[in-house]
Amino acid sequence: MKLDKLVGERFKEKPSDCIIESHALTVRGGYIKNVANGIYSSYMPMRRITKKIEQIIREEMDRIDGQEVQFPVVMPATLWEESGRYESIGSELLRFSDRNKSPMVLGMTHEEAAVHLVRDYANSYNKYPFMIYQIQTKFRDEGRPRAGLIRVREFTMKDAYSFHTSQEDLEQYYDRCYDAYNRIFARCGIPEVVTVKSDSGMMGGSVSHEYMLLTAAGEDTIAVCSECDFRANIEAAPCIVENEKDAVLEELTLVHTPDMHTIDEVCTFLNSAVEKSCKAVVYQRNADDTYIVAFVRGDLEVNETKLRNAVGCEIHPAEITDGCGLIAGFIGPYNMDERITVVIDGSLKGATNLTCGGNKLDYHYTGFNIDRDLGEVEYMDVAAIKDGGICPQCGKHSVTLSRGIEVGNIFQLGTKYTKSMGMTYLDSNGQEQYPIMGCYGIGVGRLAASVCEAYHDNYGPIWPMSIAPWQVHLCCVRSDDAATKECADKLYEEMQNAGIEVIYDDRKVSAGFMFSDADLLGVPLRVIASPRNLKENCCEIVSRDKTISQKTEIGEVVETLKKLISDMMK
Amino acid sequence: MKLDKLVGERFKEKPSDCIIESHALTVRGGYIKNVANGIYSSYMPMRRITKKIEQIIREEMDRIDGQEVQFPVVMPATLWEESGRYESIGSELLRFSDRNKSPMVLGMTHEEAAVHLVRDYANSYNKYPFMIYQIQTKFRDEGRPRAGLIRVREFTMKDAYSFHTSQEDLEQYYDRCYDAYNRIFARCGIPEVVTVKSDSGMMGGSVSHEYMLLTAAGEDTIAVCSECDFRANIEAAPCIVENEKDAVLEELTLVHTPDMHTIDEVCTFLNSAVEKSCKAVVYQRNADDTYIVAFVRGDLEVNETKLRNAVGCEIHPAEITDGCGLIAGFIGPYNMDERITVVIDGSLKGATNLTCGGNKLDYHYTGFNIDRDLGEVEYMDVAAIKDGGICPQCGKHSVTLSRGIEVGNIFQLGTKYTKSMGMTYLDSNGQEQYPIMGCYGIGVGRLAASVCEAYHDNYGPIWPMSIAPWQVHLCCVRSDDAATKECADKLYEEMQNAGIEVIYDDRKVSAGFMFSDADLLGVPLRVIASPRNLKENCCEIVSRDKTISQKTEIGEVVETLKKLISDMMK
Repeated sequence: MKLDKLVGERFKEKPSDCIIESHALTVRGGYIKNVANGIYSSYMPMRRITKKIEQIIREEMDRIDGQEVQFPVVMPATLWEESGRYESIGSELLRFSDRNKSPMVLGMTHEEAAVHLVRDYANSYNKYPFMIYQIQTKFRDEGRPRAGLIRVREFTMKDAYSFHTSQEDLEQYYDRCYDAYNRIFARCGIPEVVTVKSDSGMMGGSVSHEYMLLTAAGEDTIAVCSECDFRANIEAAPCIVENEKDAVLEELTLVHTPDMHTIDEVCTFLNSAVEKSCKAVVYQRNADDTYIVAFVRGDLEVNETKLRNAVGCEIHPAEITDGCGLIAGFIGPYNMDERITVVIDGSLKGATNLTCGGNKLDYHYTGFNIDRDLGEVEYMDVAAIKDGGICPQCGKHSVTLSRGIEVGNIFQLGTKYTKSMGMTYLDSNGQEQYPIMGCYGIGVGRLAASVCEAYHDNYGPIWPMSIAPWQVHLCCVRSDDAATKECADKLYEEMQNAGIEVIYDDRKVSAGFMFSDADLLGVPLRVIASPRNLKENCCEIVSRDKTISQKTEIGEVVETLKKLISDMMK
Repeated sequence: MKLDKLVGERFKEKPSDCIIESHALTVRGGYIKNVANGIYSSYMPMRRITKKIEQIIREEMDRIDGQEVQFPVVMPATLWEESGRYESIGSELLRFSDRNKSPMVLGMTHEEAAVHLVRDYANSYNKYPFMIYQIQTKFRDEGRPRAGLIRVREFTMKDAYSFHTSQEDLEQYYDRCYDAYNRIFARCGIPEVVTVKSDSGMMGGSVSHEYMLLTAAGEDTIAVCSECDFRANIEAAPCIVENEKDAVLEELTLVHTPDMHTIDEVCTFLNSAVEKSCKAVVYQRNADDTYIVAFVRGDLEVNETKLRNAVGCEIHPAEITDGCGLIAGFIGPYNMDERITVVIDGSLKGATNLTCGGNKLDYHYTGFNIDRDLGEVEYMDVAAIKDGGICPQCGKHSVTLSRGIEVGNIFQLGTKYTKSMGMTYLDSNGQEQYPIMGCYGIGVGRLAASVCEAYHDNYGPIWPMSIAPWQVHLCCVRSDDAATKECADKLYEEMQNAGIEVIYDDRKVSAGFMFSDADLLGVPLRVIASPRNLKENCCEIVSRDKTISQKTEIGEVVETLKKLISDMMK
């Protein structure tokens, strides 16, 4: 490929709407172009990268006996009604009607389609286990697309579905897939990806893991223990705190706290520690806007996902209206309006002599003691674990929080879909059973962007050899010099004949201009032909990551490149 | 791959909804499964076929300097408003709103997206020519999906777009693409595909060709001349007829023709030849339901596409209502209500003494002579050419009509999209110009089905080696016999080690059951290990198309297969 005909704009200025580097660099380098909010077209360099990623994924999926299939992008709503998700999923599921007014959806995930494809076939135990997967376009109508290919509405995803006759068999396969995922990320150049326990969310099921690239640009928060191997998405990390019980239980007392709407203001006013307070955070159910109040220890925050799981329905931060039974800024668990659902977080267990809202304008209670004042209470885990918090596995104060990009996930789904969609098989005793499912996803474009996020400098991406758009970037500096041009042309031909993926820049532009384009394309090896090098009968070979910089005799360039490429593929 | 774990049902009975063989065989063989009207999932064998077809297409597109990109499936309506097609295309363009109520469409073709991707970049003549292409899912909300993968709503398509600074340059590239397409179809195993001139339809532009596989199962009608190289879709074939002028022009006479609603009835009643009549066919504009009457010679039919092009808008067969100005069964060109648009076909030119409707209940005219009775008339070409009709190229009565499946198309688009979407470049004189476009499509699934339609027998598809799901089907007949099983297992391993794509059937089923499954999978080479063969230290090697049937010593099987595969790839 000659660079002068490569379609796409490359430019220096960082676009103002790019908040993370991979987004800015993929726009600046002519990899992607925005078509609508969260919807992109890809130019050739990005398409070459995603094709290589797809091929790596394919090979690893085939290696664990995956069968590549293809599901539709557009599906009938009836299929999603069977599983119940047509109702339970919010507006991220794009619903519409076709020309015959039949309700349809755009596939954002394909559990329903997978069950539909195999439920007639897999009617006997001897057909199990099996795994089917596809690499296909998906659409999720995200409310807040952001960060280039990291969070989009339309994306290409590898989604795999395995079917089993026992939990043990699923777990065995889950482990194989776990290893395959590690190989995929390593082969794509980011072996540093870690697995964390995750929330299963709308997928259902119990055990699940996310593969996280830890980076400040990530939008997920990960709790990592420095003393043991505990790692979890904050959404799936239990929050454990220690409360010291006061020797003397104070009396419950209503105190005038005029115009003090936050727990911090009240604690300051009363000169009490914020840990000795009970904070209210209010949500509403999406379905009917009824209220849920979560109470956590004053120094902690509610994690919305954990609360959603605790109450078992979709929720959103509340708007408190007159007559709803809540007095904003003064909400407490004692004497709460009975229409309100109350969730009490485990962080309040054993805490004594707390300050909390009085459920009365301008009043708080002091001396609140849950066991005494509320009677028996069911504690739930809805608070977010804090940096420096207690590790739920080893019990030490050793948790640190990091940011991460989720590049893949694996779920044990159980029988959620097979049961709801009536998929059964006959076991060896002739008994009808529901198969057990696992599902396994990787976002292709997000993975490409994540690699860029992990490996770039100020001038552009530094692509690993395995997924780079080309292996070699040949620069003919001073192509107006006939001898240099002839030498570079010959090298270009020889490289192509040797099966090297090469992009050739023979434009009549300055070396600086040429190299800054090359930096943006991030090709791992660069070969520079120039009059000066030619005088020494050499070319320069430099690597994009600056670890290699050598002069090589022209006659040995192709062989040297072949060896370097092979080394860099490992 | 072991057959016993291959997901998908294979069965004998032809499904009742399958009207063509490729549909029946791909359903019966476990290739595809219907998800909704015109929407399918693909099982592994079909996905393997389409992947191979995609790779062949890719290689040929890259060979003519194509750059693979990717456009979105979901696009904002604004992009289609720019080109004017948001308005001009009917309900096959699926329109919907996203969560923010923004109007969106599902891509059925990507001219708009292609212009969007390159219009900022390609601002100077020296960036031309270039071609970009993608292989991507599309959705066209067909009114009448049918015939399995032949006419679906969701499909995978390779669509390519080239951009040029002159018509000559476009034509030169068009020829290269024309050749590339011939190579693609030949490599996919259907070199007999022919090109025909086609109607450009909603794509715009002038010159266009379709690649047709001639088969009775096709839904297109092709006019082919047996005397010269004229070949055209009936939609794009001029209809030429000869009319003999009568020596004496009769007088225009209103004749009572009670209850005679068809031109045939009237001609029989008046004892005149049907060629001496003028038939009315009534349509309505989609936009406002206003009427269009097309008059053709009585022995001919109107071609709706040709009429649509002649009137320049979308139309549908009319419903004649009271007071519309038309009297069904008695419609004629003389004294026609002025609200009605009249189109007179060229087949009436020079015809004399015609019978036609009287625009009065139960009356027809005889002795109608257009030139005398209507004055100056603009003749248009809206009639369909007939079998045995006159070739528009060589003038002989040598046209035969065939049925065909359109497996690809190429269009010269001109500046339709670049002008409407404001894409310009500066030419070498610094003048602003609109680039000229070409576009080039191939439906991947339809191509797979077409190959099956061309090559199958009663028992299943006969896949060409180049796109077959596997190269070799290894059958272990009597796998309960330990020695046979050991021999087959070893062959399976050796084939895999030799890089042969092999599917291995070692189920404990009868040879008949095994072979009928193998027939349905249509793998080109079959290797049969059995106790009887083993006694002779041989395997049978037979080809699916029955041209090869030989016994080969076990030690030579793999080498023999490698040679056969290589030969069959040519």
